[in-house]
Amino acid sequence: MSSENGATINAVRFHGQRDIRLDRIPAPPAGVKPGWVKLAPKFCGICGTDLHEYLGGANLIPTPGHPHPLTGETLPLTIGHEFSGVIEEVGDGVTHVQPGDKVCVQPTLWDDDCRSCKRGMVNCCDSNGFLGLSGWGGGMQETTLAPATAVKKLPDSISLEVGALIEPLAVGWHAVDISPFKDGDSALVLGGGPIGLSVIQALVSRGCTNIIVSEVATRRRDFAKQFGAHHVIDPTSSDVVATVESLTGGLGADVGYDCAGVQVAVDSALKSIKARGTLVNVAVWEKKASLNMNDMVFRERAYMGVATYYLGDFEAVIDAIESGRMKPEGMITKKVAMDKVAEEGFKTLIEDKDNHVKILVDLTQPVA
Amino acid sequence: MSSENGATINAVRFHGQRDIRLDRIPAPPAGVKPGWVKLAPKFCGICGTDLHEYLGGANLIPTPGHPHPLTGETLPLTIGHEFSGVIEEVGDGVTHVQPGDKVCVQPTLWDDDCRSCKRGMVNCCDSNGFLGLSGWGGGMQETTLAPATAVKKLPDSISLEVGALIEPLAVGWHAVDISPFKDGDSALVLGGGPIGLSVIQALVSRGCTNIIVSEVATRRRDFAKQFGAHHVIDPTSSDVVATVESLTGGLGADVGYDCAGVQVAVDSALKSIKARGTLVNVAVWEKKASLNMNDMVFRERAYMGVATYYLGDFEAVIDAIESGRMKPEGMITKKVAMDKVAEEGFKTLIEDKDNHVKILVDLTQPVA
Repeated sequence: MSSENGATINAVRFHGQRDIRLDRIPAPPAGVKPGWVKLAPKFCGICGTDLHEYLGGANLIPTPGHPHPLTGETLPLTIGHEFSGVIEEVGDGVTHVQPGDKVCVQPTLWDDDCRSCKRGMVNCCDSNGFLGLSGWGGGMQETTLAPATAVKKLPDSISLEVGALIEPLAVGWHAVDISPFKDGDSALVLGGGPIGLSVIQALVSRGCTNIIVSEVATRRRDFAKQFGAHHVIDPTSSDVVATVESLTGGLGADVGYDCAGVQVAVDSALKSIKARGTLVNVAVWEKKASLNMNDMVFRERAYMGVATYYLGDFEAVIDAIESGRMKPEGMITKKVAMDKVAEEGFKTLIEDKDNHVKILVDLTQPVA
Repeated sequence: MSSENGATINAVRFHGQRDIRLDRIPAPPAGVKPGWVKLAPKFCGICGTDLHEYLGGANLIPTPGHPHPLTGETLPLTIGHEFSGVIEEVGDGVTHVQPGDKVCVQPTLWDDDCRSCKRGMVNCCDSNGFLGLSGWGGGMQETTLAPATAVKKLPDSISLEVGALIEPLAVGWHAVDISPFKDGDSALVLGGGPIGLSVIQALVSRGCTNIIVSEVATRRRDFAKQFGAHHVIDPTSSDVVATVESLTGGLGADVGYDCAGVQVAVDSALKSIKARGTLVNVAVWEKKASLNMNDMVFRERAYMGVATYYLGDFEAVIDAIESGRMKPEGMITKKVAMDKVAEEGFKTLIEDKDNHVKILVDLTQPVA
């Protein structure tokens, strides 16, 4: 962890449950390995996964005695996996980015020995590693290293703020992309949080003209409409199954996307999907989901899990934003400096979550 | 229910839980409506669904006060939906069969007003009706009426006994047909009962060269091998996940077929399927199934329900048997006369199930 010249940098690190601190850590050493880059993160979103770690973790973050198999690290470690930044230095063999380039980061770690990574499915890696969760730095430190394949050049028209949104947008893009959604299909989206809004924007970009969102919170239903939902339902006061049927010519929705991970929502969503339709799980569950098998079998419905994103998804989102098919700026509801991450970032998301979509840590703001 | 001339026929009817009787009922009236046929059932299998009705029903069979929406009937009614027979008479407009033809029967009832039937998905019909479960007669009565679309002509080379196996074989055929199985795939089959054996035979017919069957009962593992399984696993003494991995080059099975409907088997099956693989549920569940969501999400696995069969599945099975790709004769482990259905049919399947695959009611045997 020591820098050759003793230089230190600011880093927001996870030390344990409800314990996130602004630390001084050694700066990355001078020089960059072949195939790697050094970058200065500028904006970094706080993710629902970070919140799960904060409130109930460590879950994914490796704990002492159980180092991550790829990084060998354990907590305390730098968090932040939704980030943009500026390239400072590139190692030998790196040609797709140059110092000074604006980039966003696909934080997935590769495992060359993994059976899924060998098939190109890095999102199903048996080691399940991420920059900003598993070690090797992350988006909430002033300078960090990353494999060159992780950084994606941003075009001039995309700001560094919006660059930090590309990771959560890629989650929604990937879910829609590998789902059976096709032109002309109707879609039911459960939940209007950041991932629900990301799915909605991906559906809009794909030309979906019948997006129905079920969401309990009024403010989140408003966000859903703002980002392109055609119909919103409050499941506490409306019959979801009957409403979706009436909005889909009696058939039920062609595809559903569960971005909530709530049992009662899955129960009604399964009944709201047409025969042979698919419910896609994009949510993180804290316990097992249970399925009413008659709803699965007698209508030949399917339930599929999707995980983060592949290679290609970040590029597709960048293209959708650059071409104007996706306008995600409004997702940013607050920016906080590195020394305010716990108080003004995490605690705001916990206490006032319905009024926020994405809070960015702004590494360009001075630290007090 | 009265025949014009007062004639009566033998019929095995369900009167309630553990109450199946050989009754005399009025013969169908003379003449056949346009688009219908009259046939004499000859062999009729006892299905797991029949057993569920016998032991814990009425479930699907309509009860007094709740007539089936298509037939208007309630119990007592004739059971038997896996049957073959000989055409006795055809109504106007029926050209694909003639009196004297051997046929098997696809027992699905159509509902012209149903949103799924209108899409051609009669197996997802909202009314969920079957000859032999919902009224309009069935396979365990000496003469019965059926819509002409329900009867499929058997070629000379297929016996009436084997004709009665086509319905359960169509269940397995359909499951494989709509699953993502493709050439070169490995398959895990949970359960070696009649439906498991049907799936195995469909996989063999499709050229699958790596069929792995997990089954608790020794006799059923033997049946599985007899019908083409390449590997059998006893899940009570072997680690299913590790064994499947070792038999699939470390990847996991491409597709799984759950023909058991047991929670612990689903838990290990999900882990035994490769990333992006699919577990197909062919089983009937008596309660909800629960899914470990980490196994679904982090490997992007899918879980799909399949229901009975479409139009085309019976024809495909007939073709597979006629061409010799499927040799199902050995599934018939016993034949009983109509007056022995409860004692020598149902009770044998309950008390000695592992030694039997398919018990046929033989309507050609004289009744004492």
